[in-house]
Amino acid sequence: MQKYSLAIHGGAGAILRSEMTPERELGYRSALLAALGAGEAVLRNGGGALSAVEAAVVALEDNELFNAGRGSVFTHDGTNEMDASIMCGEKLQAGAVAMVQGVRNPILLARRVMEASEHVFLCGAGALRFAQEHGLEEAPPEYFFSPFRFRQLEEARARGLVQLDHSRKYGTVGAVACDAHGNLAAATSTGGLTNKKYGRIGDSPIIGSGTYANNRTCAVSCTGHGEYFIQGVIAYDLSCLMEYKGMSLQEAADFVIHHKQQALGGDGGLIAVDARGNLALPFNSAGMYRAWVREGEEAGVGIYE
Amino acid sequence: MQKYSLAIHGGAGAILRSEMTPERELGYRSALLAALGAGEAVLRNGGGALSAVEAAVVALEDNELFNAGRGSVFTHDGTNEMDASIMCGEKLQAGAVAMVQGVRNPILLARRVMEASEHVFLCGAGALRFAQEHGLEEAPPEYFFSPFRFRQLEEARARGLVQLDHSRKYGTVGAVACDAHGNLAAATSTGGLTNKKYGRIGDSPIIGSGTYANNRTCAVSCTGHGEYFIQGVIAYDLSCLMEYKGMSLQEAADFVIHHKQQALGGDGGLIAVDARGNLALPFNSAGMYRAWVREGEEAGVGIYE
Repeated sequence: MQKYSLAIHGGAGAILRSEMTPERELGYRSALLAALGAGEAVLRNGGGALSAVEAAVVALEDNELFNAGRGSVFTHDGTNEMDASIMCGEKLQAGAVAMVQGVRNPILLARRVMEASEHVFLCGAGALRFAQEHGLEEAPPEYFFSPFRFRQLEEARARGLVQLDHSRKYGTVGAVACDAHGNLAAATSTGGLTNKKYGRIGDSPIIGSGTYANNRTCAVSCTGHGEYFIQGVIAYDLSCLMEYKGMSLQEAADFVIHHKQQALGGDGGLIAVDARGNLALPFNSAGMYRAWVREGEEAGVGIYE
Repeated sequence: MQKYSLAIHGGAGAILRSEMTPERELGYRSALLAALGAGEAVLRNGGGALSAVEAAVVALEDNELFNAGRGSVFTHDGTNEMDASIMCGEKLQAGAVAMVQGVRNPILLARRVMEASEHVFLCGAGALRFAQEHGLEEAPPEYFFSPFRFRQLEEARARGLVQLDHSRKYGTVGAVACDAHGNLAAATSTGGLTNKKYGRIGDSPIIGSGTYANNRTCAVSCTGHGEYFIQGVIAYDLSCLMEYKGMSLQEAADFVIHHKQQALGGDGGLIAVDARGNLALPFNSAGMYRAWVREGEEAGVGIYE
């Protein structure tokens, strides 16, 4: 049996130490470890990688500290529009949703799209209709409302800015896992950009850019300046560097984040796992909320370098 | 100076010979050659690859024979929702739109997103708002109405089917070009699936799946069963096979279509060009509407193998 491993992230970016009180930092660390624990419980009980990344991302979506699910930021129009995607490395199946409103856990919807529809990618009102027909749990606007996020919107509106979450933090959550059978899975979920207009879609729901999983190589979830991750097709690039160029997971992960993304001008990070359970969590921004665990080892958690 | 080259497609799939009269075939061939000519005129006059693929795709969008722009099929709700994307191989810039209604040429909107927005991918009503603010030409529902397409919708509705255009033809158009400076560009546009529900998005607007361009490797536009092209990240896969594994354009193109896509179960094809002007136009379906030309050579056009 393969030893399992799991990593999660709660977004990357310029997380300012000056704005980080010990209490806030403790809150983030606790939340990350709780989400990691939710995913690890699945793996410890013999569950699969797909269920583990789903459980971890659900926990992150349910926590209003993170910009996904409940804690999603507000668009220009005062709504919450969420994107999510999930991929299974064994059969290369994938599901993704974009611009979804009113669904409590977009990652569960992405998985349902993967398993119960003939499509990979559903968007907007149509994705909500699919969610309703499949009995996904909905949540009213109040569920997604937080005074903190609304103040962010009002500040962004006043300054005419599209904001990448608070203090240029890229608000995204994600998880990658390798289970006891060597199966890989990746999941990513986001509430997008504060004050966003024009129906902007970032890399989070894009298979190959924000999320990718393939048992032959790795599972990847990205966070950062989404446009650059789309142009660089970053998640699949990492996989190709392993498959076609023979790089190790760590080499490939470092290369795409520290060489390719920086060359494009994009900042952010990613979490990745290979089929032997190795983990890589590189980022070129000032910080990335992250936690990780390998079977039989102590869990790790970090925010800054 | 590099000799220019250009290829276009008007969709792949099981194009039945039994339904193809000599008159219809002539109509398709003429339309393909006219669109090729529109793109080639740009290159002959010293224009760039980006303008050439745009001109070719505009011509295909304006022709109601093809499922893109004017000839777009109807969704379940009787609307026309269009997707398009474009990428410039020199700077890896990209623009994409999905689920756009009422814009005459979605490919022009994708280019405007690339050049005039800070985003790569805009969707739905927000993309239309962006189009209006940037003065893109709109068109009323009648412009997109054809009795032929509406009859397809009624047939599909009656049988409860989501249809991949007529006779399982994958209705997409695209173009790839290499200009005199060795710059590459790719563009793809589609009207999607007849009777589609749930806001389904295929591979056409997905950078890395339906469209990709990079001067170091190739420019690619895909057509086929979109879900498989998303899972395979096909357009970028071709580029990685060249960049990381050292394959030629033809080897890489054949590999992704005849090996990878067939292994996934997906059918379709692609057109691709490299920075030396070599062209590849593989497909594993019964046919693919296509045309191509290299500077100083006679243009080619084909439907079947």
